[in-house]
Amino acid sequence: MKAVVMREHAMQVEQLADPQPGPGEVLVRTLACGICGSDLHMFHHCESALQGFKRGGIPLQFDPARGVVFGHEFCGEILDYGPGTEKKLKPGTRVCAVPLVLGPDRLENIGYSNSYPGGYGELMVVQEPMMVPVPAGLPSDIAALTEPMAVATHAVARAALQGNEIPLVVGCGPIGLAMILALKARGYGPVIASDFSAGRRALAEKMGADVVVDPARQSPYKSWLEAGAPADYDAAGPLAMLGLDDRARPCVVFECVGVPGLIQQIMADAPPRSRIVVVGVCMERDSFEPIVAIGKELNLSFAFAYSGEEYAQTLYDIADGKLDAAPMITSVVAPEGVAQAFSTLATPEHEAKIMISFEGQAGAS
Amino acid sequence: MKAVVMREHAMQVEQLADPQPGPGEVLVRTLACGICGSDLHMFHHCESALQGFKRGGIPLQFDPARGVVFGHEFCGEILDYGPGTEKKLKPGTRVCAVPLVLGPDRLENIGYSNSYPGGYGELMVVQEPMMVPVPAGLPSDIAALTEPMAVATHAVARAALQGNEIPLVVGCGPIGLAMILALKARGYGPVIASDFSAGRRALAEKMGADVVVDPARQSPYKSWLEAGAPADYDAAGPLAMLGLDDRARPCVVFECVGVPGLIQQIMADAPPRSRIVVVGVCMERDSFEPIVAIGKELNLSFAFAYSGEEYAQTLYDIADGKLDAAPMITSVVAPEGVAQAFSTLATPEHEAKIMISFEGQAGAS
Repeated sequence: MKAVVMREHAMQVEQLADPQPGPGEVLVRTLACGICGSDLHMFHHCESALQGFKRGGIPLQFDPARGVVFGHEFCGEILDYGPGTEKKLKPGTRVCAVPLVLGPDRLENIGYSNSYPGGYGELMVVQEPMMVPVPAGLPSDIAALTEPMAVATHAVARAALQGNEIPLVVGCGPIGLAMILALKARGYGPVIASDFSAGRRALAEKMGADVVVDPARQSPYKSWLEAGAPADYDAAGPLAMLGLDDRARPCVVFECVGVPGLIQQIMADAPPRSRIVVVGVCMERDSFEPIVAIGKELNLSFAFAYSGEEYAQTLYDIADGKLDAAPMITSVVAPEGVAQAFSTLATPEHEAKIMISFEGQAGAS
Repeated sequence: MKAVVMREHAMQVEQLADPQPGPGEVLVRTLACGICGSDLHMFHHCESALQGFKRGGIPLQFDPARGVVFGHEFCGEILDYGPGTEKKLKPGTRVCAVPLVLGPDRLENIGYSNSYPGGYGELMVVQEPMMVPVPAGLPSDIAALTEPMAVATHAVARAALQGNEIPLVVGCGPIGLAMILALKARGYGPVIASDFSAGRRALAEKMGADVVVDPARQSPYKSWLEAGAPADYDAAGPLAMLGLDDRARPCVVFECVGVPGLIQQIMADAPPRSRIVVVGVCMERDSFEPIVAIGKELNLSFAFAYSGEEYAQTLYDIADGKLDAAPMITSVVAPEGVAQAFSTLATPEHEAKIMISFEGQAGAS
């Protein structure tokens, strides 16, 4: 099959042997696959990220020298079944799938694995119970947004917002945009969103953010104050600091950037008693000042991935129009365009989600 | 008055002008005052700690060159009232007091202030509404444990433990010991406690910890596993990591050390989905790996101080015997012994809480 392979710190189109479905597995032809920020990070900082996973006991390891086919945000169609499968869905059925191969004592991450190539290749192998059929009429590239949207669905669930809390989304890349959409779909708000990029602020508005700010011009916490506190409330004053002035609506900050320094910056700027939900995936060592978090009695929740139920529900919500994720897609490229797309995404003023499309290409080789 | 003064990085006994109670304030004669770990840190790292507070917007500032009288864990007796006071308690009444002087736009921390000397001096000024009378029969040095015990009372409340969760106390200094006591008093358990010091482990047992471990010999997380999970549960396995094996009782770690590196160490060692309640006050910059917290979906709550209600309730609970805090006191010193006590507490194998006693001393000068 044709695939975009990361090998020796380069992204190149290669011909690889077709993957074969094992017991309980299904061969799928890729129709569309999104480029994820984590793919970018893995490309630029692969060794340090893998070391971080190892130190943290996180079961995600592969040998980059052997070549890796990225891609965990995909939609495909069923080509063939391996042994011991139930075959409830006909070949030709379009599916999304949770990008995991899971056994009692093993876990492979499709797209971050030497054994399971991801959606940057024409063919993939997924586990049968991980598949969800794509409802008729939903374009494949929109269906491929299920994975990043499921991350947001899960983060909203994990945040367990109280009616009074005001969500503030820091960073309007694909995950921040997905957060805005997921928050609005569940009726939370006003949603305040913040990004230095004008292009991404425009997308944040499209996604339904109620207040969109350029943090170079106005602090998003000032927007929070305007939306949720009386005029004489002093967030930095002793009464607020001690929790003795509780007239402001609590602030829940969603960190959707994932670079070092962001968590500390949010801790320093957020009002006392804020909750911070970390959705951005920072793979580098980071630093912070505990005394800031202590004095303000902050709470940090780290959110990661999603359950199978959340994944399936997200696909249905996209198909039903409850989650209109389509504006997130800013470009579609062929496999040959992936290397260039990685360069473009390094300074993504005009891009959010770039989709790789295999539709219109020749079938499996 | 006689007072132990921090000046020019030295602790020395000096004669100072007697403080005068202003409007709404009360003059108190110190009977007993505890040496707090924060006092030690402020002595050794004063400038960097004050800078950290400033960056974090925490209203605790003083000029160390002007001399500071530490001491926020105190018991005293009322000597005289300032103007505009209600005078509900007679002179001679023993009181504890929340160590704050609070106005609509000011906050002074008694013991960390150039204007309000703390309990390392013979005389103090406190705000009238901050006082709680000490029940008859309770020794003054035990009453002076109200402040650190209130920190634990608050941290237990903030943790809001679910019946199924297992608390694990990391560090058995005064705050860790107070945590053990507060957890047991509210019926939580089994309480697992961990400290490298044999002396402090012995105190942890006295405080009622159900399992006490030397982390140099056995991981406290192994004790958690033994106490709360079936024999075939694999905390590092993919099912636990993904939240798909929920047979273990969740772990809630109370960080009671407050030195750099501890939070990261707990994040790396704790099982997936753990909650970490940070009670130790680390005043230095710290570092951590977000990816570890993300992969395990950890939650960090930072706890600080207590409400006035929690403070008063803690004093009553100590007086009622619900909180038997007495074993925390390992030494009592006169003001002249404070400098030596600070040296001893640098390597506190045999010490937990050292009390400064002014009883038996000459009265106000």
